[in-house]
Amino acid sequence: MAKIEAKLQQMGLALPAPLKPPAGLKVPIAMVKITGTHAYVSGHAPLAADGSLANPKGKVGGELTVEQGYQAARLTALAMLASLKRELGDLDRVTNWLKVLGMVNVAPTFNETPRVINGFSDLIVELYGKERGLHTRSAVGMAALPFNIPVEIEAEVEISK
Amino acid sequence: MAKIEAKLQQMGLALPAPLKPPAGLKVPIAMVKITGTHAYVSGHAPLAADGSLANPKGKVGGELTVEQGYQAARLTALAMLASLKRELGDLDRVTNWLKVLGMVNVAPTFNETPRVINGFSDLIVELYGKERGLHTRSAVGMAALPFNIPVEIEAEVEISK
Amino acid sequence: MAKIEAKLQQMGLALPAPLKPPAGLKVPIAMVKITGTHAYVSGHAPLAADGSLANPKGKVGGELTVEQGYQAARLTALAMLASLKRELGDLDRVTNWLKVLGMVNVAPTFNETPRVINGFSDLIVELYGKERGLHTRSAVGMAALPFNIPVEIEAEVEISK
Repeated sequence: MAKIEAKLQQMGLALPAPLKPPAGLKVPIAMVKITGTHAYVSGHAPLAADGSLANPKGKVGGELTVEQGYQAARLTALAMLASLKRELGDLDRVTNWLKVLGMVNVAPTFNETPRVINGFSDLIVELYGKERGLHTRSAVGMAALPFNIPVEIEAEVEISK
Repeated sequence: MAKIEAKLQQMGLALPAPLKPPAGLKVPIAMVKITGTHAYVSGHAPLAADGSLANPKGKVGGELTVEQGYQAARLTALAMLASLKRELGDLDRVTNWLKVLGMVNVAPTFNETPRVINGFSDLIVELYGKERGLHTRSAVGMAALPFNIPVEIEAEVEISK
Repeated sequence: MAKIEAKLQQMGLALPAPLKPPAGLKVPIAMVKITGTHAYVSGHAPLAADGSLANPKGKVGGELTVEQGYQAARLTALAMLASLKRELGDLDRVTNWLKVLGMVNVAPTFNETPRVINGFSDLIVELYGKERGLHTRSAVGMAALPFNIPVEIEAEVEISK
């Protein structure tokens, strides 16, 4: 069995179904696009197992605590891994996590955004190890995210052919 | 005639002149930068035909409706295509739309940012088709955009030599 | 002596020590990650000489003036150059500044974000010249930046082997 998926299984983590967009929303985008040895990954949201937007929604530092934001970022990593698996077939083909933009839906006075996006980064590093998993990152506070999701994260990764 | 430009003409769409920055603003940047088969594209604004910032300006969900935001995103696509044409000579040289960051200037409670950036994505997919035109994307809400433009969009595309 | 560092010295500019994160903050990221001839650079903050977050902190257009924001963006460039020097050994190995995302921590009515990020861009162009130094850029306003820093900037550059 592929190593990354075996680890996910050992950790008791499952990958969600593809994003079910909110009713009436057209999404004229690709979740992953590959050129050569690079894969570009769209901004992902935290998802429930069936692909619907996970709850709770809202602003971190407002309706959501930092810990809830951290868990949302972890769910976002799983949603991104699910998209990569659908595109690549095998998550072991991701050889290098290059770049991550972590966006947090923030309440007016909240600014500890790195603590939130760590929910994503910690999981990626746990799964892929430091050499492949440590990525460059910005972890910043947005005025709004689509449909009031607490976290949205996009990435660029290197892949083997 | 080049195919993409022929399509633009059929659709009755014209490309604007280069950005005229607001008076007194120094812009020490490149609108497009090429390395190998990749072109990086600066954040673009919606432009009027003469290259000045298009009206209306303001925040979507505040001064501007979603439909006005959509139209602003469509104008932003035309401004970006104009920059790419100046740099590449021929828009058919864009072989793959890889990645788009769509930023919406949002009023406090507005979060339907994907509906706004669809104004950009729909036009790119209409012009380039699904295989080349579908791109990875984040469509998110900003606290401010330069000089109160409603939308700013940056991109990375693949090009033929 | 390497040319870029000689210029920095002539200009009386010194590179800061590595980032000292705020107490208790885990930072599971890489400041720079290299693949082939590209280096991805994490979001950087303005730093004091010892690597602590520089003062003043706060929102541009609120606690900070545009000029203070400009100086913060200039300090951010120095912090990024310090990270690149640690990773590459020699700043002359940066052959092309491809892409910059300049994020400004904005007070509610402030939108002259390009004037702030020019503090970064002006320094890079002065050091590297127009051909190598002019970069594509977005310069936009964020609802929050980590620990209330006024500016955060990330980049992608081309390097020689």
